[in-house]
Amino acid sequence: MKCAILSVGTEILFGQITNTNSVYLSQQLNLLGFDVLYHYTVGDNDERLAEIIKLAFKDCDLVIASGGLGPTEDDMTKETVCKVMGDHLVEHGPSKEFLLKNAAKLNHKLTENNFKQAMMPSQATVFDNDAGTAPGFALEKDGKTAICMPGPPREMTRMYQRRVKPYLEQFQKDVIYYKTVRLFGKGESSLETELLDLIDGQTDPTIATYAKEGECTVRVASKRATAEEAEQAVSKTVELIEQRVGEYIYSIDDEELVQVVGKKLLERGITISSAESCTGGMFAETLTSVPGISEVFDRSLVTYTYKAKMEELGVKRETIDTYSVYSKEVAEEMALGLWKKSGSKICISITGIAGPGGDMPGKPVGLIDIGCHFRGQTYVKEVQMRNVNRNWNRHYAVLAMLDLINRLIDGRNIN
Amino acid sequence: MKCAILSVGTEILFGQITNTNSVYLSQQLNLLGFDVLYHYTVGDNDERLAEIIKLAFKDCDLVIASGGLGPTEDDMTKETVCKVMGDHLVEHGPSKEFLLKNAAKLNHKLTENNFKQAMMPSQATVFDNDAGTAPGFALEKDGKTAICMPGPPREMTRMYQRRVKPYLEQFQKDVIYYKTVRLFGKGESSLETELLDLIDGQTDPTIATYAKEGECTVRVASKRATAEEAEQAVSKTVELIEQRVGEYIYSIDDEELVQVVGKKLLERGITISSAESCTGGMFAETLTSVPGISEVFDRSLVTYTYKAKMEELGVKRETIDTYSVYSKEVAEEMALGLWKKSGSKICISITGIAGPGGDMPGKPVGLIDIGCHFRGQTYVKEVQMRNVNRNWNRHYAVLAMLDLINRLIDGRNIN
Repeated sequence: MKCAILSVGTEILFGQITNTNSVYLSQQLNLLGFDVLYHYTVGDNDERLAEIIKLAFKDCDLVIASGGLGPTEDDMTKETVCKVMGDHLVEHGPSKEFLLKNAAKLNHKLTENNFKQAMMPSQATVFDNDAGTAPGFALEKDGKTAICMPGPPREMTRMYQRRVKPYLEQFQKDVIYYKTVRLFGKGESSLETELLDLIDGQTDPTIATYAKEGECTVRVASKRATAEEAEQAVSKTVELIEQRVGEYIYSIDDEELVQVVGKKLLERGITISSAESCTGGMFAETLTSVPGISEVFDRSLVTYTYKAKMEELGVKRETIDTYSVYSKEVAEEMALGLWKKSGSKICISITGIAGPGGDMPGKPVGLIDIGCHFRGQTYVKEVQMRNVNRNWNRHYAVLAMLDLINRLIDGRNIN
Repeated sequence: MKCAILSVGTEILFGQITNTNSVYLSQQLNLLGFDVLYHYTVGDNDERLAEIIKLAFKDCDLVIASGGLGPTEDDMTKETVCKVMGDHLVEHGPSKEFLLKNAAKLNHKLTENNFKQAMMPSQATVFDNDAGTAPGFALEKDGKTAICMPGPPREMTRMYQRRVKPYLEQFQKDVIYYKTVRLFGKGESSLETELLDLIDGQTDPTIATYAKEGECTVRVASKRATAEEAEQAVSKTVELIEQRVGEYIYSIDDEELVQVVGKKLLERGITISSAESCTGGMFAETLTSVPGISEVFDRSLVTYTYKAKMEELGVKRETIDTYSVYSKEVAEEMALGLWKKSGSKICISITGIAGPGGDMPGKPVGLIDIGCHFRGQTYVKEVQMRNVNRNWNRHYAVLAMLDLINRLIDGRNIN
């Protein structure tokens, strides 16, 4: 089933609110195996609204709209849908009754325009609103269906789950299944090059790659007659991807790297501390976003100045003078100094240049050195980042630290 | 000028990402006095993309698009815009040079599809990308303009501010002037109540309040024939707002609180260190986002466990046992211990419960205690946050720390 999602509301066009209804409905319709071809947003304007609905029905079987069902004059979705689909509004008894009952309960006096909400297309299937006063409806004509729901997300999502989803299930043909594979350490174009023949030859499962702040994701989706078939098809393709780029994969279940690492630390009771410089506390902040992490996370010493590095972590002045503060040697001393103080099983450290300035001869912006003391050994790893900007660099540096920890815990190659 | 905002990307139609580009561009185009009539989203599909652009140009003078400029095969915005507007792609010398230079600097090997990014419509005005590799462009034909920018919000917003906005100003008729007043410590509805008569009576300047993660902003805008008139009208209204809620205002120039504080620290050479617990490094991370802050920021000790608090900051076990770890007394000892170690002029500390769990009798989730050693005195402040969720709480806690520092530097009342 081909669908368009339509949002009605001038406040969206002003940028006053973010259109979360479209995100929600996209996810829901995709889960039913429907294809979402368009998102449209129009203001409270009858002509433009009519034109968009007509256009949507050219390609799509279903237009699912939210907004414009309220009691005020600029709420005109119902009227416009009727005009386009050749129906007219009539009073809907149960909806009027509900309005009256509700008003009596709350001791509200209804104004005349309130009753507008009880007017419904004569051939519509009406959907009650459990979280507000404007009912929604579905109107079917010549194989095309329009569904209209109220705009407030709380009302819309509830109506979708309780009334619209069961209604739409009659149209469901296939089952969709997908997996999202996440990778770190490989750029999107290089990833795509390695998967090109799979991507080019694809019909089902489909393979799509996305870049996301230093990480990549690959989404593998299949639409089949049964859940089993779809799942099998996806798993096979995921295996092929693992064969090619498995070295970079940290999750085949769309988990964040910090969640993957946090889970392993908690499950195995591995205590951890960090010594940060260029990341400025971002590593600790990221790790402590994992619920329950206080069981294993002891401390992070954010040592920005030389003085702090020497006082807090016992880094030697001589080491800084000989190798520069941005060096494997300093990263190593930071990790070791942290371990002596905290005794944590994993002591991870970082020093580097987040930029924009701060480079030195032989030490370009974006260079980071990561140290890690783990099971009696201190590992160091140097990475040259792409240097997009300071924040991107810091974010990438945190991912690189997590990646190193993940590899060490797994006993994998760290390079 | 009538505009349509177009987002290109299958991931939006799958509901994998929220369309924040449309929100941003709506706000920006409205600020220029342009009318946004439509938002459209289409996937990476040539035919549908072409149809939408044609439709948009029926009503609109400007189509402003983001997404689909990348190096991969499904990035086709440029080709489609050319087809609709009757142009063709040619190699754009400076863009190719940039790609090569950038790759050389980072020692990256370019794959063939990378060079696709240097192809531009022959009649286009090309916009450099300061935050990524895909340039954008404007193409004008018969009074209709298409503007294409990359999809990643970080790249798009920067390109908009630096290249597209100046380009669009040629189409601007009225002059719009606005100021954004930022406040901390006052909720949106309470703020709106205090400004209600100003808001209700408004025609020009217009006053709009927005809530944003614990902060509030008030945007005062005026659209006049001359810049002077508009500026004067706005300034008068801002003065009225200052008279009413000046106590909570930290910027009338839309600066972030951390920028305001960072600037003061740098200008006055005030060194600073922090001792964090529930914020987990977020304070340091936030402060170190200020360029050049390494001149004054020494260290942050993120002490998550009791042990770390005692070892790193000299917090007494007795104090924790008597008053609980979430107390003014512990915050005070943290600040004092940090000062003894670092000698920084400002030593700020925090302890508290970010939630969701972790509350104790008399210590509800959302309670934070902030300590600050400054000019020989240790101040403490206890705040009960609204407890929306863990991340909101941590963010709010950082703002509360910055607010306390800002007030102490200014010599203002800290409560």
